[in-house]
Amino acid sequence: MLSLEDALALDAADPLAPWRDRFLLPEGMIYLDGNSLGALPAVTPGRMDEVVRRQWGQDLIKSWNVHDWIGAPQRVGDKIAGLVGAEAREVVVSDSTSVNLFKLLSAALAARPGRRVILTEPGDFPTDLYIAQGLAARFGAEVRAVEPDQVLAALDEDVAVLMLTHVHYKSGRRRDMAALTKAAHAKGALTLWDLSHSAGAIPVDLNAAGADLAVGCGYKYLNGGPGAPAFLFVARRLQAELSSPLTGWMGHAEPFAFVDDYRPAPGIDRFLCGTPSILAFTGLEAAVEMFLEVDQTALYAKGERLCDLFIEQVSAFAETHDLRLVTAREAQQRGSHVSYAHAHGYQLMQALIAHGVVGDFRTPDVARFGFTPFYVGYADVWRAAGILKSLLESGEWRDPAYAVRARVT
Amino acid sequence: MLSLEDALALDAADPLAPWRDRFLLPEGMIYLDGNSLGALPAVTPGRMDEVVRRQWGQDLIKSWNVHDWIGAPQRVGDKIAGLVGAEAREVVVSDSTSVNLFKLLSAALAARPGRRVILTEPGDFPTDLYIAQGLAARFGAEVRAVEPDQVLAALDEDVAVLMLTHVHYKSGRRRDMAALTKAAHAKGALTLWDLSHSAGAIPVDLNAAGADLAVGCGYKYLNGGPGAPAFLFVARRLQAELSSPLTGWMGHAEPFAFVDDYRPAPGIDRFLCGTPSILAFTGLEAAVEMFLEVDQTALYAKGERLCDLFIEQVSAFAETHDLRLVTAREAQQRGSHVSYAHAHGYQLMQALIAHGVVGDFRTPDVARFGFTPFYVGYADVWRAAGILKSLLESGEWRDPAYAVRARVT
Repeated sequence: MLSLEDALALDAADPLAPWRDRFLLPEGMIYLDGNSLGALPAVTPGRMDEVVRRQWGQDLIKSWNVHDWIGAPQRVGDKIAGLVGAEAREVVVSDSTSVNLFKLLSAALAARPGRRVILTEPGDFPTDLYIAQGLAARFGAEVRAVEPDQVLAALDEDVAVLMLTHVHYKSGRRRDMAALTKAAHAKGALTLWDLSHSAGAIPVDLNAAGADLAVGCGYKYLNGGPGAPAFLFVARRLQAELSSPLTGWMGHAEPFAFVDDYRPAPGIDRFLCGTPSILAFTGLEAAVEMFLEVDQTALYAKGERLCDLFIEQVSAFAETHDLRLVTAREAQQRGSHVSYAHAHGYQLMQALIAHGVVGDFRTPDVARFGFTPFYVGYADVWRAAGILKSLLESGEWRDPAYAVRARVT
Repeated sequence: MLSLEDALALDAADPLAPWRDRFLLPEGMIYLDGNSLGALPAVTPGRMDEVVRRQWGQDLIKSWNVHDWIGAPQRVGDKIAGLVGAEAREVVVSDSTSVNLFKLLSAALAARPGRRVILTEPGDFPTDLYIAQGLAARFGAEVRAVEPDQVLAALDEDVAVLMLTHVHYKSGRRRDMAALTKAAHAKGALTLWDLSHSAGAIPVDLNAAGADLAVGCGYKYLNGGPGAPAFLFVARRLQAELSSPLTGWMGHAEPFAFVDDYRPAPGIDRFLCGTPSILAFTGLEAAVEMFLEVDQTALYAKGERLCDLFIEQVSAFAETHDLRLVTAREAQQRGSHVSYAHAHGYQLMQALIAHGVVGDFRTPDVARFGFTPFYVGYADVWRAAGILKSLLESGEWRDPAYAVRARVT
């Protein structure tokens, strides 16, 4: 078992440790909620102020040209492509994850006429299921949700698209993207991967896996700010064939020709819809650039070790206190978060937060801890596990004040 | 004809004149582009910094509760309701105008089974037409686009929804919302109004007009910042009956229950989709609050007088220089912008911009001038007309440098 001294020594030797200063976190907080809202990069407030005061305030409308606001969806998309194994012009930033799921599910169904099934699993992040259900109900498709181990058996010639999350938001389970994509392709189906809990957290290689479509979230491991714009990926080989049902002007071949008839832009641009929110894009772009500066292999390897260390430390007292590890012990089978089920998971997490260890809770009973190697160190993990242990041993977490539910949990 | 002295006297007597200092505009610029991108309110940079540094940076994930980020769509929506003649909980802020058009057109079609026509007019702002076309092509509806004077004749029992812009983006023509809504209702059709060029520019009274549905833009007269989130309105009497095809988790009755099955929220919330972008919302909310502080009747009356004054001044030399007024002279028939067609409209507008009069150009030949009474004064209008005149008389606008097209026009 690692001692605090060992953890401090690992931090001292960690070439990524200086990145901690590139984030503005409250003094003394151990922030393990990167999987719900990534921390604020130190560069971001200044960038925001530049865009607000100078670009918007002084350069006003001409900023669409002189500061290339108009190119933001592609420019930030290209940067994210570098994190998910995509090429330039295979990713754009646009709308929300939910809206992008709708675009790509609809595009996939249209590209597989005669097939009407969206195959997925139950218990996925709700918006994925809800969007599929809404599309199916309104536009005549069918959602087939089967347990994870039944997916291969359920892949048949009726399936237009297999929609799965790469890393599950609650359990942290990582899917084998390459194997599942191959199986889907063998049946003639497309794949749509939700990367919300894997982009920026673990190595993602969409093209190596042969993936067709993907979406992902900007505000978790990418640190783009609360409700940051989302991104979408369409493999280049499919871009001419697929089209978006949300045919807004930014997806037009010539948005500023102001002609009456919609004609989709060539390539990935056709998946854009309305005018991009430049304030929101600014936060995301500032954050994503850090990933292009860091050694990503080292970053993800450190994330893996942080998760390992947390599991190792907590395993010493988990059983005694009815904590059940929900996440896989094997690093290759998980993302960069670790979840424990506990009968009073919400209450326990509130107690942790009160003691400066900020994770989050996912209903009905999961305490979730995200490890962001940019700003979480080995000693942080050691201390977080120690605080969890002491709260369980003292029973302090049973204070009823910790059980009061907030609106957002 | 008004003299500069007269105009200065009007400014001196104008109770709204002090509002000019509530905006951060470049020294010497006459900014007449509020209809493309509203100016920066002085309060906004500080609000943004507060949200970025303190709420995101320090309070992090708990801000969804303690700073009521989660309530932003409804809170800002309620504020906008006060500008468009809607009640609280009839408006939410969400997504882009394009995405909201898709939601409401789809909802309207579903609410009128057996009818499949979206009735609209050609030459509308392109995204409105494009979204209707995309919806029709993918999901089996029909777009019927008829000239403005043919709309009443084209309203028949096949029409599910009449979609019109309240104030036309190019000509500035204002539609009679009440009369057209009444005519649509007489045929059993719903109405969808695009308020992008009227909300915050002229009096809008959706409920007095009996309007069913509306969308609008946050970044024009509302001054919410580049690509600010958009809003949508659904009359309360229709909220239980209509539903969104974009069934994202924020539109669920219990978003944080994380159940597998979509169940629409009661009321307007069901038209929300993904996670709101708090950075973008912050800019919009700060700006919209100014409208609730000002005397709106006086504000719009001033806007009307500014347009009148510009038309009056320009009419003295328009014909000589082949400028054709596209906008109605009668205030009740237009919004708060004035458009002139000119064979070299783009070049002429670039020359004006180079001389500090910032309007914009709309293809093929329209020079457009938006009058925002918050920060445009009578003398500004007088000077803008004078600069236009001198450029035309000197012929300086013919400099070929002004004809070089930017990507965004």
